[in-house]
Amino acid sequence: MLSKEQVLDIRKDFKYLDIKENLVYFDNAATTQKPLQVVDSLKDYYEKENGNPHRGAHYLAIKATDAYEESRDKVAKFINATSNEVVFLRNATEALNLVAYSWALNNLTENDEILISILEHHSNLVTWQFVARKTGAKLKYLYLDDNMQITDEEFENKLTSNTKLLAITAASNVVGTMPNVKEFIKKAKAKNKDVVTVIDAAQFAPHHKVDVKDLDCDFLVFSGHKMLSAMGIGVLYGKEEMLNSIDPFLYGGDMIEYVYEDKSTFLDSPARFEAGTQNVGGAKSLAAAIDYIEKIGIDNIYEYESALTAYAYEKMEKLSYIDIYTTKNEHRSPVLAFNFKEAHPHDVASILDNYGIAVRSGHHCAQPLHRNLGINFSCRASFAFYNTFEEIDYFIEHLEDVRRLMGIES
Amino acid sequence: MLSKEQVLDIRKDFKYLDIKENLVYFDNAATTQKPLQVVDSLKDYYEKENGNPHRGAHYLAIKATDAYEESRDKVAKFINATSNEVVFLRNATEALNLVAYSWALNNLTENDEILISILEHHSNLVTWQFVARKTGAKLKYLYLDDNMQITDEEFENKLTSNTKLLAITAASNVVGTMPNVKEFIKKAKAKNKDVVTVIDAAQFAPHHKVDVKDLDCDFLVFSGHKMLSAMGIGVLYGKEEMLNSIDPFLYGGDMIEYVYEDKSTFLDSPARFEAGTQNVGGAKSLAAAIDYIEKIGIDNIYEYESALTAYAYEKMEKLSYIDIYTTKNEHRSPVLAFNFKEAHPHDVASILDNYGIAVRSGHHCAQPLHRNLGINFSCRASFAFYNTFEEIDYFIEHLEDVRRLMGIES
Repeated sequence: MLSKEQVLDIRKDFKYLDIKENLVYFDNAATTQKPLQVVDSLKDYYEKENGNPHRGAHYLAIKATDAYEESRDKVAKFINATSNEVVFLRNATEALNLVAYSWALNNLTENDEILISILEHHSNLVTWQFVARKTGAKLKYLYLDDNMQITDEEFENKLTSNTKLLAITAASNVVGTMPNVKEFIKKAKAKNKDVVTVIDAAQFAPHHKVDVKDLDCDFLVFSGHKMLSAMGIGVLYGKEEMLNSIDPFLYGGDMIEYVYEDKSTFLDSPARFEAGTQNVGGAKSLAAAIDYIEKIGIDNIYEYESALTAYAYEKMEKLSYIDIYTTKNEHRSPVLAFNFKEAHPHDVASILDNYGIAVRSGHHCAQPLHRNLGINFSCRASFAFYNTFEEIDYFIEHLEDVRRLMGIES
Repeated sequence: MLSKEQVLDIRKDFKYLDIKENLVYFDNAATTQKPLQVVDSLKDYYEKENGNPHRGAHYLAIKATDAYEESRDKVAKFINATSNEVVFLRNATEALNLVAYSWALNNLTENDEILISILEHHSNLVTWQFVARKTGAKLKYLYLDDNMQITDEEFENKLTSNTKLLAITAASNVVGTMPNVKEFIKKAKAKNKDVVTVIDAAQFAPHHKVDVKDLDCDFLVFSGHKMLSAMGIGVLYGKEEMLNSIDPFLYGGDMIEYVYEDKSTFLDSPARFEAGTQNVGGAKSLAAAIDYIEKIGIDNIYEYESALTAYAYEKMEKLSYIDIYTTKNEHRSPVLAFNFKEAHPHDVASILDNYGIAVRSGHHCAQPLHRNLGINFSCRASFAFYNTFEEIDYFIEHLEDVRRLMGIES
């Protein structure tokens, strides 16, 4: 596991720690902070390599093209895909919507079923409500057992030969559950070989090795900003044959082959889905983020973050005035959702902020999950590998202050 | 007009000039270079203010929200809109596609006509081909006179009471034409009060004052990266009532009000159209770009760039071995498309690159316009206010070298 010294070394790369004393950032599931290597990659790009890629024969256009395509190669390798299978978009949300517009709206009918889980982030839920409304397809939910897991039984009960789309998260942003998506994909394909499978890896890719070949998913999405990169860059992975068989999504420059006044022809993936000038600086920062993650080792990151989460859970479990909403599985993402029995989560978050502690309060873009848990809102502490056990101690210590300041009696 | 000294001062802010000697960047219509104030704004954001906006009560989430919404306010003021009318997207292309998906696909039928011009960039052309194919609406083109202008007569001939969408560029990225879009909008609304008007200002906003109230357009789009900002940020302006009356485009977090398992309700503009985590750093860099432009003065920029363009045109016009494709109007955008009579534009651009001169060769995402001009490709020199008259002299001087190296006889 990452040693204390290693983590202290890592923290030297994170300038947000200099903003103020005792800034404890536990909102990593919303967006991570950025190491200086990532920030420097942006500066370098804009000062030394900036141009419009793909469209020019001059020095800076070539530099920009190289920066962009080398970033794509790096992302492809990171998830065990080929470069043509990696489409750069703004974020995971856009990637899911691309699948909805380009594949689902053109392929689903009222006889089909869309299977998602109650764990889903709104982006992997509202999008399919939209598709269901437009196509008449039926939206079905996988629900959770007492340990916040989707059981094999539940999956088999919901899966039918009409399941044409399985869209599921690889890691919950609220309760930490990491469904066995590989097994679910296998079962879905055994039931219906034409099923299309979409994995939301926005909360998984920052913490755990992604291998799209091993998963055998048709599509997989994630966002750069949740894994150290700049904002405005996300990834859609799709099997190459799938990507080249579906309609374009956004129309414009760089995705066309020939344009006549009355009709046009389009390029193959990835250009097919990257209309207009793309975020080259963002793509380069994602490559720098991957370099940073790989230098530490994604397995080391997962192990350390799991230990942080387990440590925090053990401490919080002892606090009788707190309810924790989380799976107890060891295999989980580093988030802990909780509520004070007698205080509103917004008050809790505000008071903790007075001590420099950043936790999120709200529905975390998962209203149906919250409703399913019998609550409307929660607080959420989410950890990254640059957090420390000492920060967790500091957080736990100040939970008691929340009670005191709210005037809640012991 | 900007003095030589002022321009030399401005050039100190542009670090790309240090990349190599004699780097003459004349590819500004593809993407501009960035002043250090813009690059610093990115660094500042990621080191001091980075968080996920709108969703948190803690220090960094609030800082990020402020950075994002203050950027929106600045953009709104820059184009004389209100903040709720400014939607942040990736680029102008995405903005046009949003109008296509959210308004056009739901409102056009086979009885309707879409009126665009032959000047259009593919993003404002292929997008409407897609809409025409999906809805059955008829796509009609405005063509050019000998001076590359769209005459009032041409406009009146093509405008009918069935014209339901007018989508037109405010500035050509190839031949420099700046159509009188204000007058066209007025005429279109007089003919059919329900016409929807879309202005592509991607090549206009970097050079000329935009006033959406004065134009009275329904939608207007532009990209940040073509006006000094980082990549990955663009703007859709829409009249507030219009934006709140159309369907969302991308579905996900931050654009919803209530989400139930079977249905959802959505927020009003701008949140309605900003699903998922947005590019806050990019938005902040656009605000820094606007500050930079306003410090110099957009009118000063336009005057100086026009003088640069006129100067280059006068010099090139004397070269009998070159064809220039441009309007001769004084009111024009700072681009000059040209071809050597006896050399392919790719060869011309490559040879000029050997001297450090960056011009673009290709169809500049305007194949129908090129075909209309009787060519397939052209070279394009496009200027910005940080270019100099000396750079134009250097460029003109090396045009002769192209001939020499290609072995073209005098």
